Amino acid sequence: MSGAELNGKPITLADLRDGIDAIDDHIHDLLMQRAELVEKVGEVKGASAAQAVYYRPEREAQIHRRIEARHHGPLPIEAVHRIYREIISASLNMEKQLTVAYLGPEATFTHQAAIKQFGSSFHMYAQPTIDAVFHEVEVGRVNFGVAPVENSNEGAVTHTLDRFVDSPLIVCGEILLPVQHNLLSRRDSLSDVKRIYGHRRALADCHQWLDAHLPHVERVESESTAAAALKARDEEGAAAIAGEYAADSMSLNLLAEHIEDRAGQENRFLVVGRIPPKPSGDDKTSIMVSFQDHPGFLHKVLGLFAERGINLTRIESRPSQTRTWDYLFFIDCEGHQDDPRVAEALQALADLPGVTEKILGSYPKRAL
Amino acid sequence: MSGAELNGKPITLADLRDGIDAIDDHIHDLLMQRAELVEKVGEVKGASAAQAVYYRPEREAQIHRRIEARHHGPLPIEAVHRIYREIISASLNMEKQLTVAYLGPEATFTHQAAIKQFGSSFHMYAQPTIDAVFHEVEVGRVNFGVAPVENSNEGAVTHTLDRFVDSPLIVCGEILLPVQHNLLSRRDSLSDVKRIYGHRRALADCHQWLDAHLPHVERVESESTAAAALKARDEEGAAAIAGEYAADSMSLNLLAEHIEDRAGQENRFLVVGRIPPKPSGDDKTSIMVSFQDHPGFLHKVLGLFAERGINLTRIESRPSQTRTWDYLFFIDCEGHQDDPRVAEALQALADLPGVTEKILGSYPKRAL
Repeated sequence: MSGAELNGKPITLADLRDGIDAIDDHIHDLLMQRAELVEKVGEVKGASAAQAVYYRPEREAQIHRRIEARHHGPLPIEAVHRIYREIISASLNMEKQLTVAYLGPEATFTHQAAIKQFGSSFHMYAQPTIDAVFHEVEVGRVNFGVAPVENSNEGAVTHTLDRFVDSPLIVCGEILLPVQHNLLSRRDSLSDVKRIYGHRRALADCHQWLDAHLPHVERVESESTAAAALKARDEEGAAAIAGEYAADSMSLNLLAEHIEDRAGQENRFLVVGRIPPKPSGDDKTSIMVSFQDHPGFLHKVLGLFAERGINLTRIESRPSQTRTWDYLFFIDCEGHQDDPRVAEALQALADLPGVTEKILGSYPKRAL
Repeated sequence: MSGAELNGKPITLADLRDGIDAIDDHIHDLLMQRAELVEKVGEVKGASAAQAVYYRPEREAQIHRRIEARHHGPLPIEAVHRIYREIISASLNMEKQLTVAYLGPEATFTHQAAIKQFGSSFHMYAQPTIDAVFHEVEVGRVNFGVAPVENSNEGAVTHTLDRFVDSPLIVCGEILLPVQHNLLSRRDSLSDVKRIYGHRRALADCHQWLDAHLPHVERVESESTAAAALKARDEEGAAAIAGEYAADSMSLNLLAEHIEDRAGQENRFLVVGRIPPKPSGDDKTSIMVSFQDHPGFLHKVLGLFAERGINLTRIESRPSQTRTWDYLFFIDCEGHQDDPRVAEALQALADLPGVTEKILGSYPKRAL
């Protein structure tokens, strides 16, 4: 067996470690040079703006995108993003401790999402409700809030969007986490599973896998994923469809991972704050729009975007809560509200008779 | 108001951002060069050893110590350690996914400690008991285990050390987290607090602060910190002494942070594994020793270390569980078992009549 060679001579472990040490020293020097430049950014902003804005979601998105575009080599890109996330997180919190409120409890997907977005130098506070998350940001006790908006794993119907009706806050970011369904049980083997509990949506997401692997096992709908996991913990022979965190916290065995039928599904979270992000080059805009009942009106609304070549990425209708918002829609489109085409479409929409429009925010688009 | 200047000309934000981008590109290139060298380490080890050992606690400790020794500049050293932790964590998990079992549930101090040690590229599994943590490592389902051994915050009396009596596992690392006591309550103000709950040890740790700030408020001992936090949540006017995680998970207000009387106390956790670390240059050794009752015997045992100039950092007696271990002591000393002086002391101890000695492991010493 021949070892690695360099210029025809065998490389020793000591050579390699010296090489790694030299690189580490170099990275360390660069981190400090970077921190000094970040300090100067603070000074320049202090001289040019009444309120220094340290965290700029669009700038952070650009840094990650640039690194991803030039990435090659043996480290996975996710690991590289994690390293830069910590570098950026440390820089942002150098002069002032920034804070985040998220929908708790800890160690749930929303907590994971907050850490994915902000890194570990931010202080994070779990909140019991989405309302409390908004409130903490509104009264200025924290800089940002994180709340789920589409969540297939936890199966919760959340009302994050409704909270914008009466809130002065804006959307300043989105966070995506891949959906992962697993089969969990106290037993060790698939053949021991007598009954499967899962949220309706989770059972639907995995039905092909269940048909193939456990065709004759009874499936029972649970109110939530947490309720399904409790059944798996407490009922002999029961299994649950849940995220990995439930395996940890309830000491269940992971009988099968990634049993979802379609890959690439995502849970989505919103970052709420008070300061609007500037264009990052690849953005989304979220709006809320209401109008009186009128046949064909929604079609007309959507036409304003279509005729300007603006893609809609999401549209959701919500029951109205007040008379002002008789028919309430949440619409996400591609582009930033400062882009002329988007601005024009938003203006045309606001000018329609009987329409009330509220722009919730423009923010960097995320890949998974 | 004058802005920052460079060679007499005002620096613009664009200049600074270009500078940061250039540094980021450079760091990125170095990360990839580093990963390539780490790959070569794997090849050299593969060629030279039957079992490639990817994770070397002593090597990791040396990297962190070298960076700490040369550190200067605006980023706090803790943030620099976190960035390197992610770099090392990513490197280690490049070729093979490494795994850790820890005493759960998630988001407790033990989970924090595991992340502090291993970074976020390791897969972590919460276990319900210390026994389960050991078992997962013993049967080879995970690479490492993390369990608390001294924990002032959670106030638990843990029996991690006892588990070594019958286990083939060794200690291959220690993790320290600073003790932080906080006063938590549903109320907003200290003047609303009618009663304070806390674990005996927590009340003792904070008695000066409590005497100074809440001298006339009743103090009640709780069985555990978790029990105290529950009282604060459920009882009108109650407050609890607890860690910050309890504020998050029970939605309590942080009335006062860091109310402990002495700074620098620490919670300590052990990393258990199967492969002994080599000397890192600044190590500790943990041993378990038993002997028959005999006046002056412990004094004699300790003398063997003292006469060789070896510091003991910790000594704890435990009730015996079997006849073999009539009087059982856990002793930590400075130095590695491969250091000649330490080896000599350990041998002299084992040679004493009536003594049974078990070396639990040598591992890198940690600063907080």
